[in-house]
Amino acid sequence: MTNSETAVVVKANGYGLGAPSVARVLAKAGARTFFVAAAEEGVILRSTLGPGPKINVFSGHMDGDTDIMRGSNLTPMINSVDQMLRHLETLPAAPFGIQLDSGMNRLGIEPEEWSAVRDIALSQNPTLIMSHLACADEPDHPMNAHQLKSFREMTDGLAVPCSLAATGGALLGPEFHFDMTRPGIGLYGGMPFADAQHVVTLDIPVIQTRKVSQGETVGYGNLWVAKQDSIIATIAAGYADGLIRAMGNGARLYADDIQIPVIGRVSMDLMTVDVSHLHDVPTTLQLLGKHQSVDTVADFAGTIGYEILTSIGTRYARTYIE
Amino acid sequence: MTNSETAVVVKANGYGLGAPSVARVLAKAGARTFFVAAAEEGVILRSTLGPGPKINVFSGHMDGDTDIMRGSNLTPMINSVDQMLRHLETLPAAPFGIQLDSGMNRLGIEPEEWSAVRDIALSQNPTLIMSHLACADEPDHPMNAHQLKSFREMTDGLAVPCSLAATGGALLGPEFHFDMTRPGIGLYGGMPFADAQHVVTLDIPVIQTRKVSQGETVGYGNLWVAKQDSIIATIAAGYADGLIRAMGNGARLYADDIQIPVIGRVSMDLMTVDVSHLHDVPTTLQLLGKHQSVDTVADFAGTIGYEILTSIGTRYARTYIE
Repeated sequence: MTNSETAVVVKANGYGLGAPSVARVLAKAGARTFFVAAAEEGVILRSTLGPGPKINVFSGHMDGDTDIMRGSNLTPMINSVDQMLRHLETLPAAPFGIQLDSGMNRLGIEPEEWSAVRDIALSQNPTLIMSHLACADEPDHPMNAHQLKSFREMTDGLAVPCSLAATGGALLGPEFHFDMTRPGIGLYGGMPFADAQHVVTLDIPVIQTRKVSQGETVGYGNLWVAKQDSIIATIAAGYADGLIRAMGNGARLYADDIQIPVIGRVSMDLMTVDVSHLHDVPTTLQLLGKHQSVDTVADFAGTIGYEILTSIGTRYARTYIE
Repeated sequence: MTNSETAVVVKANGYGLGAPSVARVLAKAGARTFFVAAAEEGVILRSTLGPGPKINVFSGHMDGDTDIMRGSNLTPMINSVDQMLRHLETLPAAPFGIQLDSGMNRLGIEPEEWSAVRDIALSQNPTLIMSHLACADEPDHPMNAHQLKSFREMTDGLAVPCSLAATGGALLGPEFHFDMTRPGIGLYGGMPFADAQHVVTLDIPVIQTRKVSQGETVGYGNLWVAKQDSIIATIAAGYADGLIRAMGNGARLYADDIQIPVIGRVSMDLMTVDVSHLHDVPTTLQLLGKHQSVDTVADFAGTIGYEILTSIGTRYARTYIE
């Protein structure tokens, strides 16, 4: 969709999907620049990818990071004057990028600080100058134009590659693309990239089924009361597996294309569902897949698809299909 | 607090704290019976604990579990007639327990099924008969007496060790203790065991601080607007680290004993906090510790301490103090 480089964001263990597996596939597809949140994530990624690709670290060069930055050849996105001094002092010949704050006030060097340090920073040949948008998933939000203007004012005329857009920003149009976009969620099937294909399928084993009579209760706090005689299945996943406890009323799984409502409280390792309307109860029920995206499941829990992905637990067996 | 055996529940990776480290300490303290949710968790635990202790699996003997049950000498808590047939057929000489449903309708053999299979089950010498309470954290809830009565009716006179109570049940009094209690959350500093000491300390590094002027916004969606000139710190943890995104208004961390309010949206790898009132910003701020329990943090997110614990992410460096 762009004429600039597409870098890929694999922080938070590849948005919960397994950074090594995800990164290998993306490298094979041509990605040459990877972003992680923390230096420790970069170490794992370097051992996965080998020496070629560039690995950029959003949190920059934090106290204690120097040895692993050097050892794994990571490129910190320097966020502050403090970090710049630390980097130039401890790893003077090592690559670095610059993260500017264009208005989100979360990470990055402020415009006034940038005026003060840009000459010394540029003399050290930064590999990238980047910033991040606060409201990119709301295309009409005036913050987008405001941040674009601020980023331009800080970077116009500089002979350094620039990047402003993640998934949402890439969708805002070419003026947001600069030399590199950095999609994350859009790679993994989540909004705001509405045309994303579904990436994750999550099937949960059924442990057992039981009949409950009208008036019987199910689960913690007797939360669910049977309005009629019903068949209830208990399935082997709960909030310790990332099925956020706030998920409840209105949440559902699928047996093929038949909706299966969640009933009662999500507990730590288990959930209960109403399978009264099934002829045969299959061995697994599907939470994520072609019928239901991470964003639909996020709605059940009052959150966003990103949190559904990063919460996916470690007890699931993971199979990767290339 | 009891005259019966105290078994320990270390499912969900020891309630998020690291099952191997937790189990080693509990074994040293005298625990001889451990509970996990799934057979796969039992495999890890067996390699940690060696051949001595008993490892019980709440989800019973599921399809596909046979080889690892045998290989790691796990004891399934049989939940259904189907599971009993599977177990007796595939591992006829291997130990097993029985999980009965006394009213929660989540896991366990129903009273009528139990009448039908108890003779054959008892002839195979089960190691334990257990059930689980749905409302144990509400001492006055009539469900507790109801489940106690149901469990007694199913087990009275049997020469098999019995267990009904987890943390909440143990606090309901001796008639709930039977031969074994199975505390989980109470081991890890969470309610309903109000006298629990704090177990987890969570310190989060500060990445950078910045001045924001009155009227400036911070974070995704411009959610927070500065009512006055402020100093904002960005810290290195977010919802991918288990700091549930629903946490927001009213959430706080600590710098020593000074409260530090969370502002704006919790993002994937980062949070922003207001440190305007600090003379010096320390290198870390504390979310969990002596000032603030998992239950307090759970209140910030509208959930329970259990979910805070099991959500604690893998990017934290973990240090265990014995």
